[in-house]
Amino acid sequence: MSFPPIRPELAGIEPYGAPQLDVPVQLNVNENPYGPSEACLDDIAAAVREAARELNRYPDREFTALREGLAAYLNTDGGHGLEARNIWAANGSNEVMLQLLQAFGGPGRTALSFAPTYSMYPEYARDTHTTWVQGKREADFALDLDHARELIAEVKPHVVLLPSPNNPTGTALPPEVVGVLCEALAEASGGLLVVDEAYGEFRREGTPSALELLPAYRNLVVSRTMSKAFAGAGLRLGYLAADPAILDAIRVVRLPYHLSAVTQATALAALRHADELLGKVDELRKERDETVGWLREQGFTVADSDANYAFFGSFEDRHAVWQGLLDRGVLIRETGPDGWLRVSIGTADEMNAFKTALLHTMEELA
Amino acid sequence: MSFPPIRPELAGIEPYGAPQLDVPVQLNVNENPYGPSEACLDDIAAAVREAARELNRYPDREFTALREGLAAYLNTDGGHGLEARNIWAANGSNEVMLQLLQAFGGPGRTALSFAPTYSMYPEYARDTHTTWVQGKREADFALDLDHARELIAEVKPHVVLLPSPNNPTGTALPPEVVGVLCEALAEASGGLLVVDEAYGEFRREGTPSALELLPAYRNLVVSRTMSKAFAGAGLRLGYLAADPAILDAIRVVRLPYHLSAVTQATALAALRHADELLGKVDELRKERDETVGWLREQGFTVADSDANYAFFGSFEDRHAVWQGLLDRGVLIRETGPDGWLRVSIGTADEMNAFKTALLHTMEELA
Repeated sequence: MSFPPIRPELAGIEPYGAPQLDVPVQLNVNENPYGPSEACLDDIAAAVREAARELNRYPDREFTALREGLAAYLNTDGGHGLEARNIWAANGSNEVMLQLLQAFGGPGRTALSFAPTYSMYPEYARDTHTTWVQGKREADFALDLDHARELIAEVKPHVVLLPSPNNPTGTALPPEVVGVLCEALAEASGGLLVVDEAYGEFRREGTPSALELLPAYRNLVVSRTMSKAFAGAGLRLGYLAADPAILDAIRVVRLPYHLSAVTQATALAALRHADELLGKVDELRKERDETVGWLREQGFTVADSDANYAFFGSFEDRHAVWQGLLDRGVLIRETGPDGWLRVSIGTADEMNAFKTALLHTMEELA
Repeated sequence: MSFPPIRPELAGIEPYGAPQLDVPVQLNVNENPYGPSEACLDDIAAAVREAARELNRYPDREFTALREGLAAYLNTDGGHGLEARNIWAANGSNEVMLQLLQAFGGPGRTALSFAPTYSMYPEYARDTHTTWVQGKREADFALDLDHARELIAEVKPHVVLLPSPNNPTGTALPPEVVGVLCEALAEASGGLLVVDEAYGEFRREGTPSALELLPAYRNLVVSRTMSKAFAGAGLRLGYLAADPAILDAIRVVRLPYHLSAVTQATALAALRHADELLGKVDELRKERDETVGWLREQGFTVADSDANYAFFGSFEDRHAVWQGLLDRGVLIRETGPDGWLRVSIGTADEMNAFKTALLHTMEELA
């Protein structure tokens, strides 16, 4: 065997991750452009200092206070009567997804999504040896409900992963889809529908959260993250709300003490500052709508967006456009179907820099 | 399918973890009894505050500064010329082990250890669908080198997990074993030997670290943790030193941004206070030797210990002894072969409480 003895299907694969480049305007990984206030920083520092007094001890394996805080928050954004017993969390949504597929996927089992969608999903499936099946979205990236139902009946997936809004397209699920697919799954396989609401707080008025449907469907899981609306990408705190029996299954595969005392303390401090951190969400939604409108005015095709990013095209050579923007100090993301690009919504100044760079790039390439 | 659709082999399994009980004297999970100083707490708080300024941004996916710091530290404790390129880290040694088995184990592959040993190992194997094979240790918990070589030749494991010192017995590997097993593995399967030195800093004088052998064997991996000697169980920072090609394989399966900005900042601050945090190691080693001596004077059988715990027996009803101690406010661990108990090494006061509680318990049970 050659050295090192990596599994053959993993050999030569590039590790997942967008380029981390030092560029003035970073609009590539859908970060929130606003950092925490000094008051929030003070609270984080004080909370971590207090928690670190017992840093020699293992953390609360059940992170009960944090689960209570997350439940209370979700009840203000679509949740109904959620309690700590409904909440699970891990180091980023990606660990949450991995745990879900460890418990409910795995060898001999199947996970399903609809492309184009989040490019990490097939990696979670690969890393848990779950068979990965992808249906297709429509030309406007919406989900065709009949296609989805048929595929569920045919594939009998154990887990369906559906982001709402979808990444990288920004497309939210219409309200009726979640219920219909939960029922289709219950009938076909008894599988779970995981609605990934990583960007859920950015949804447009009138777009509901799948959290509202948790009381009606016990095979529904709704995941969220503190990375985006909570401006905590550096914190790595993903979480989900679900039936407590689903949490008990995850507990079997979670690594004990997976959430550090420092993570728990920082996340709790950030939750105490929810008003401040979420306060920028409305501003970002306005900037998003403005950006989508402006791009359309320039003649680009832009997907409807319920997220903090816009997906636009189409370009004969999207890489040349991406590079033109990068040459002008603006980093966006080359992802999803060929010909399309994704730009994260930053501050007004950052979006102006993006617009100027895009116009200059298009002139140059004309 | 019944609800929830958990994998059948996981159904009904109790999640791993020692009881978290609120008891005055906690000697059950091998924590370091000494918390950080006020100066160290100040530094941690300041470092986290500074890192949290950019909490809205994703952390350094390669945690380069932390890898440099860990390499520099290991070079003071057995490592030779280790650099950042040799170091990997994750949220606790258990995530490090999971990643190793994801990259090098998995379906159709085999991991091997020798019982009695750390009870999480079979869980890592189960969670990665790696076939788990256990050889046996001698009556004194030492490893018989011929037995180990034969089993490696027969089983052809892709990964061998060997803690040194062993948990729960405290038994260190003799120096010659590591080299012999690396060679046996290279010949049998090209597999990796992972020497788990979670408790490595507590080794007795004259016991070498496997780090010394890294330059000689490229299929050798040595893992450490900041949980024990560094008194950072709440921090969840495990790490390993190995050939850079092994790290590249781990990068394929690691979840992107798995180490938060807060974890990186806290670990770096703790490393800056290494002298203070490690300063208690000598004291704990003395207390350990003293405890082992005392237990032997009382007529117990005690395994030689290179760790911050003592493994002693044998009891007809170890649960009754464990319960007797708990009734007296001292929590120890009921683990490993029947009839034996493990006590962590705490402060001198805590060990006195343990001794008194043990004597009273034995009187009561006599």
